[in-house]
Amino acid sequence: MNNSANITLLGKARFASPIRHSVNDEARVPLHIVRTPGVTPIEELLFEMAGPREKLFFDPRDTRAGIVTCGGLCPGMNTVIRSAFLELHHTYGVKEVLGFRDGYHGLDPASGLEPIVLNADLVDDIHKEGGTVLGTSRGPVDISRAVENLIKRDVNILFVVGGDGTQHGGYKLFQEAQKRGHALAVVGVPKTVDNDVPYVSRTFGYQTAVQEATRVITCAHTEVHSVQNGIALVKLMGRHAGFIAAEATVSSQEVNFCLIPEIPFKLEGEGGFLNALKKRTLRRAHAVIVVAEGTGQDLLENKGGERDASGNIKLRDIGPFLREKIEAYFRAEKIPMVMRYLEPSYIIRSVPADAEDAILCDQYARHAVHAAMAGKTGLVIGLLHDHFIHVPIEMLAKQEKRVDPNSSIWHAVLATTGQPAHFE
Amino acid sequence: MNNSANITLLGKARFASPIRHSVNDEARVPLHIVRTPGVTPIEELLFEMAGPREKLFFDPRDTRAGIVTCGGLCPGMNTVIRSAFLELHHTYGVKEVLGFRDGYHGLDPASGLEPIVLNADLVDDIHKEGGTVLGTSRGPVDISRAVENLIKRDVNILFVVGGDGTQHGGYKLFQEAQKRGHALAVVGVPKTVDNDVPYVSRTFGYQTAVQEATRVITCAHTEVHSVQNGIALVKLMGRHAGFIAAEATVSSQEVNFCLIPEIPFKLEGEGGFLNALKKRTLRRAHAVIVVAEGTGQDLLENKGGERDASGNIKLRDIGPFLREKIEAYFRAEKIPMVMRYLEPSYIIRSVPADAEDAILCDQYARHAVHAAMAGKTGLVIGLLHDHFIHVPIEMLAKQEKRVDPNSSIWHAVLATTGQPAHFE
Amino acid sequence: MNNSANITLLGKARFASPIRHSVNDEARVPLHIVRTPGVTPIEELLFEMAGPREKLFFDPRDTRAGIVTCGGLCPGMNTVIRSAFLELHHTYGVKEVLGFRDGYHGLDPASGLEPIVLNADLVDDIHKEGGTVLGTSRGPVDISRAVENLIKRDVNILFVVGGDGTQHGGYKLFQEAQKRGHALAVVGVPKTVDNDVPYVSRTFGYQTAVQEATRVITCAHTEVHSVQNGIALVKLMGRHAGFIAAEATVSSQEVNFCLIPEIPFKLEGEGGFLNALKKRTLRRAHAVIVVAEGTGQDLLENKGGERDASGNIKLRDIGPFLREKIEAYFRAEKIPMVMRYLEPSYIIRSVPADAEDAILCDQYARHAVHAAMAGKTGLVIGLLHDHFIHVPIEMLAKQEKRVDPNSSIWHAVLATTGQPAHFE
Amino acid sequence: MNNSANITLLGKARFASPIRHSVNDEARVPLHIVRTPGVTPIEELLFEMAGPREKLFFDPRDTRAGIVTCGGLCPGMNTVIRSAFLELHHTYGVKEVLGFRDGYHGLDPASGLEPIVLNADLVDDIHKEGGTVLGTSRGPVDISRAVENLIKRDVNILFVVGGDGTQHGGYKLFQEAQKRGHALAVVGVPKTVDNDVPYVSRTFGYQTAVQEATRVITCAHTEVHSVQNGIALVKLMGRHAGFIAAEATVSSQEVNFCLIPEIPFKLEGEGGFLNALKKRTLRRAHAVIVVAEGTGQDLLENKGGERDASGNIKLRDIGPFLREKIEAYFRAEKIPMVMRYLEPSYIIRSVPADAEDAILCDQYARHAVHAAMAGKTGLVIGLLHDHFIHVPIEMLAKQEKRVDPNSSIWHAVLATTGQPAHFE
Repeated sequence: MNNSANITLLGKARFASPIRHSVNDEARVPLHIVRTPGVTPIEELLFEMAGPREKLFFDPRDTRAGIVTCGGLCPGMNTVIRSAFLELHHTYGVKEVLGFRDGYHGLDPASGLEPIVLNADLVDDIHKEGGTVLGTSRGPVDISRAVENLIKRDVNILFVVGGDGTQHGGYKLFQEAQKRGHALAVVGVPKTVDNDVPYVSRTFGYQTAVQEATRVITCAHTEVHSVQNGIALVKLMGRHAGFIAAEATVSSQEVNFCLIPEIPFKLEGEGGFLNALKKRTLRRAHAVIVVAEGTGQDLLENKGGERDASGNIKLRDIGPFLREKIEAYFRAEKIPMVMRYLEPSYIIRSVPADAEDAILCDQYARHAVHAAMAGKTGLVIGLLHDHFIHVPIEMLAKQEKRVDPNSSIWHAVLATTGQPAHFE
Repeated sequence: MNNSANITLLGKARFASPIRHSVNDEARVPLHIVRTPGVTPIEELLFEMAGPREKLFFDPRDTRAGIVTCGGLCPGMNTVIRSAFLELHHTYGVKEVLGFRDGYHGLDPASGLEPIVLNADLVDDIHKEGGTVLGTSRGPVDISRAVENLIKRDVNILFVVGGDGTQHGGYKLFQEAQKRGHALAVVGVPKTVDNDVPYVSRTFGYQTAVQEATRVITCAHTEVHSVQNGIALVKLMGRHAGFIAAEATVSSQEVNFCLIPEIPFKLEGEGGFLNALKKRTLRRAHAVIVVAEGTGQDLLENKGGERDASGNIKLRDIGPFLREKIEAYFRAEKIPMVMRYLEPSYIIRSVPADAEDAILCDQYARHAVHAAMAGKTGLVIGLLHDHFIHVPIEMLAKQEKRVDPNSSIWHAVLATTGQPAHFE
Repeated sequence: MNNSANITLLGKARFASPIRHSVNDEARVPLHIVRTPGVTPIEELLFEMAGPREKLFFDPRDTRAGIVTCGGLCPGMNTVIRSAFLELHHTYGVKEVLGFRDGYHGLDPASGLEPIVLNADLVDDIHKEGGTVLGTSRGPVDISRAVENLIKRDVNILFVVGGDGTQHGGYKLFQEAQKRGHALAVVGVPKTVDNDVPYVSRTFGYQTAVQEATRVITCAHTEVHSVQNGIALVKLMGRHAGFIAAEATVSSQEVNFCLIPEIPFKLEGEGGFLNALKKRTLRRAHAVIVVAEGTGQDLLENKGGERDASGNIKLRDIGPFLREKIEAYFRAEKIPMVMRYLEPSYIIRSVPADAEDAILCDQYARHAVHAAMAGKTGLVIGLLHDHFIHVPIEMLAKQEKRVDPNSSIWHAVLATTGQPAHFE
Repeated sequence: MNNSANITLLGKARFASPIRHSVNDEARVPLHIVRTPGVTPIEELLFEMAGPREKLFFDPRDTRAGIVTCGGLCPGMNTVIRSAFLELHHTYGVKEVLGFRDGYHGLDPASGLEPIVLNADLVDDIHKEGGTVLGTSRGPVDISRAVENLIKRDVNILFVVGGDGTQHGGYKLFQEAQKRGHALAVVGVPKTVDNDVPYVSRTFGYQTAVQEATRVITCAHTEVHSVQNGIALVKLMGRHAGFIAAEATVSSQEVNFCLIPEIPFKLEGEGGFLNALKKRTLRRAHAVIVVAEGTGQDLLENKGGERDASGNIKLRDIGPFLREKIEAYFRAEKIPMVMRYLEPSYIIRSVPADAEDAILCDQYARHAVHAAMAGKTGLVIGLLHDHFIHVPIEMLAKQEKRVDPNSSIWHAVLATTGQPAHFE
């Protein structure tokens, strides 16, 4: 298996595991599983299966772990913290678990933020609340000071809950620790409400977000269905990928236009979006539009490419832009209409995880603990074909996960909206 | 009882009522009921008790009724429509009930909108949806053309679901019909999510709105509680009265500042709001502010006094104004902070009524039908000291209902927020 | 005002109140407010208005208060505990607040249960959970030992959250304390999900219960609407009064038969319930029945009159009885049918309070604190015509609150179900 | 690919498809994808990938389809009906879609039930309701009369939404039609809220059921947490497989004992369940037990093996049995306790699908339509490793899907409950 996505090991595992059942360390899950005779198969790529290992690298009684949560809120962060703590504490008997506060900021001693020593009472009810009890922030970590801090505190395991940039920072932490001869297992739980992490079929919190987005779309539909020529424009999350927009469209069955970053669209002209919206509105007297926030960046002036504190390119705001274009167009066409603009991101991402996401969070967290205890580092937990896997952090940057216009879900979007495959 | 709020009668009631139990037409509910020895009582004012009457003015078999819904959405509009229809159709056996479409617009034949003939199948499930199946709009009615239309269609009863302006229009409709010798009972069900109708202790939909606003506040709190110096600003409904803001503050118990139109406040200076916000933020690292939309109009430039289609004075927008002031202030004070601005009105007012509001809608509707069948006109159904009453429409304009700074609920707001009684 | 419901005072109030606004101690709210010329008015009865008083009887800095919760669960108990603590601690500055555990059981030192010293952190989030953090139990209190305990612990104020029997126990506690020369203000917050407390228009938790019951009825309706001759029987709370059953019937609009304790009914015969159910089922192929638990006690064998630990008469169980009768009847009539029996009480009463109930809990709690601090004792907080009042505990036993068959809400029940006024 | 699960074709597909993108008819998804060096691989089994095909067997303009829903309720049945209709009608342009009523009963002309001709208006809002608008029933179909009926009505496609027995009936329908020379594509959408269908990673409605079960567990926990020695016993669905019990245990994190059919347990003795329950209750003063309905059949007297109308073996009822055993045991041990028994199945399975299940329903339905239009028959739509597949109906009986005691989810159950791997 030469084409395996190999995981870095801190050393040979030799301590007994308290878990009776274990996963074979050689078990692999292939990326491409569909086989078609006569079709040249895509180059094989194999991932380590996640799960408890027969032997541990760390002696639990001597091990101190830390957890840090970074970036924007996402349903289920507290469940990840809680289940990671419980698995470390109850199942493995790890000595101490620290909760670093306010994201990477709190890894830096200069912040003056003392980590919280987690215990069973403290985490008991946190899964019932949205957000993160550890606090979060955007922005990079000072690698050198953070690693010094981890060494000083005798932390050998760090769980990093965050997105792309955050995981990349985690990778550098592990490298720096290695350079300094400190055994540090850095294991990530990928967090993005957008669901756009490669090798991860569902990121935690995503399904809850789709549920909440569906609620909002129903409200938007009610609003515009109750007035003459009501047009609702709902801006949903989705910087580079329109999964939330697409799935909330299918689940609500009440959207007429779904616009996502993956599919460029024309505003003006016979085949453009505005003309289609006009025709729909004249025909049915109302319309619901869902747009993912990263959609149509080519339509917006993109000066400079500013970045936010996490290093993400700042997006121009499609929401107000589209709203103005629509209003101007209907004014010009002398068609009276009633605009309802909704931007519900904060009320979507701040709710607690629903049942299925709670389970997913629990599983990501426990698998992360298994990996770390076995001495694996520089990885995030992935989910491929219903199997949890180990994904080397550096592989995340090499691949994109996007809504496939040929997929069954996008077919359902086109079918339920009735919109054309392209506005052009 | 000279100081009774007298209701206009279309004539002597003489038809048998199908309802066995009736309310005495002379029964009255006093406005002021608290008695204090040594305190001069406020001048007495008495209202007719609502309810079925012994005799009807209209012969159900010969009567055609209409319903119209006007203004912004409010939870429960469909329940009002449904219960009014069911009471007219099943209990009284009225010949036909028309649903006029798109608010007062649809009363005008010039709109080309044909009313819907309601039936049991059509209304069967509508109470499970928000909004109004009849449609709604803002704007006045052309009195003359509307009355002509009602006469032509042989409509003798019109139920008007709407706010102040709408009810005032209803009053003119009845007057015009009277002038033309057409017996028209106009009975209103007051609709305002703001809960600011005099002689109406709770307008329908209001409690549902408080429930939804509470949900949003919890989200806002989660957002700012998860970051350093997070400040959430939640703009809620409340043009002239802050009931939603105040009650959602008490129900959520997570608000730190509640600003309402009834209580002017200073922004700047030692005792001003911004300084108090700074102190709170420095002390607790997060803050949740709730502001009713009509708050602080004196702080905003008020040019001209424009009005919207319903004739309401257009308010300057306190939300973005306050947001900018806060951001500028913290910038000037060099305190980093994270702003979360939420404007959830559309998702609050468009949900279906909760159980208690559903019952309230049902009761308003049935009492409106009783009043109309008895030949009463020019009134709205009120709710005073737990009794449904008849309120002459013209009395609505003479009185204001506002949050009382000496009330127990405002005491609870001050207690839960910890904010001072005045920012001055 | 001779016919005032007089409240016992522990002595003359003389300490300054921290609350600027106060309610006149002489202010009274009359029980009967409707006036009808020619109708002899019911004998006047007046209640003290609740609210902060100008002077306090207790010096907050020297005062220790206790809270105890008794009987079955009810949405909002934690909010009552929390708001009472906050008002005592923050507004009045009371020295210490003790939470007695497990109901009256915990007042007895023999239980070995040490009370919890409440603080702001401890109560911070409890309003988001159902149940009671103090624990609860049924059963009477040993008056002598309990009062000794209160004296020993220097407790001068006791808040009692519970039903009839519990409040009666509270009354005896105050009497015993008085006998022993210990100033003890016993102030009750009436708790019964059934909403059947006289002089209390809405008990806390009741509206939330109606909301949850409505959810369950919708499920029951879905079940039977999806099969041929499906009959759902939903047993709801309501020992002596059918408020939940009646209001959930009106709010859901999906019930065909609503049976409550106030209205006896016949099972057999032409006009009996079973025949009506048969006709309905044959006509529409499904039926939803709601029955309050205390309904039809005359139909059940009532041997002896056993009582539960709280001293309530043990009811025979109408649910299984009715289920069997229906099944036997349809078997005898050779009509196939599908029975769905639901008994959802535990999932109705254990949820957290909804927004409106949260506010109500908050207000009951704060008014209870005002009364106690003013040195009033032997009372519960009531709610009459939208005003909070003081009700002497011993008056509760003299009056019943029941669903009035002539009320507007029962009219709505008959209208929405289509059931006859009587099965006879 | 000799070991492919081959699907029966009605004939060569030759009509043009309206869908641009198609799935290669030769594409296969393997059952076993994990590879471990040195471990002999399990015998290969391959499934056809589902999805639109390049050519259709049926000419849409000449095709009439039917849908039938059978067995117990499950969230999402209406969404399956709706999306199947929409895909048939809008995407393919099929002439007519019939909804057969009341399950297989309605396929038999002897029932006198005329099928409903579906249209866009009729299905517009049905996905917002639980249950099935077509009605359902248990029991087998009269194959001969049903096929005759389908031939007479010129139905060439039948969608069967139901469980094991139902799908098996569907298989016989297709065989009988074949025998009579009538081209009938029978395509199943597997329906079981228990999630125990082989080759189907998630059946529709299952996630919603877990969500609702979690709500109920929270209520149960609140009940017992508020009293001394409260013990809640929650009986959940799960005839042969404990997926709902296990996942609701993990999602709620509030269960102390989870009992499922896959894992036999001893009641009595040192290592038995009752002793463990006693110890837990004495230690923590409350306990929550979740039991799947099919658990512990060996403990119950199993006389005869009766079957219900659908042919399923009638289970003895573990719920009341366990309740009595617990009560008797605590009585014998003289430990007072408070029992809370909950049986919420009807309120779990009758709710509408949540967002993720709504999407799943939509996808199952559309894939079923693609398969039928391509002339495939005798299959159900499966879901394997995130790919929709075609599963020959007769394969369902040859395989079981059960909770694996070595799985990660069962590890999480043991971790969150703290219960031993076995009570023995």
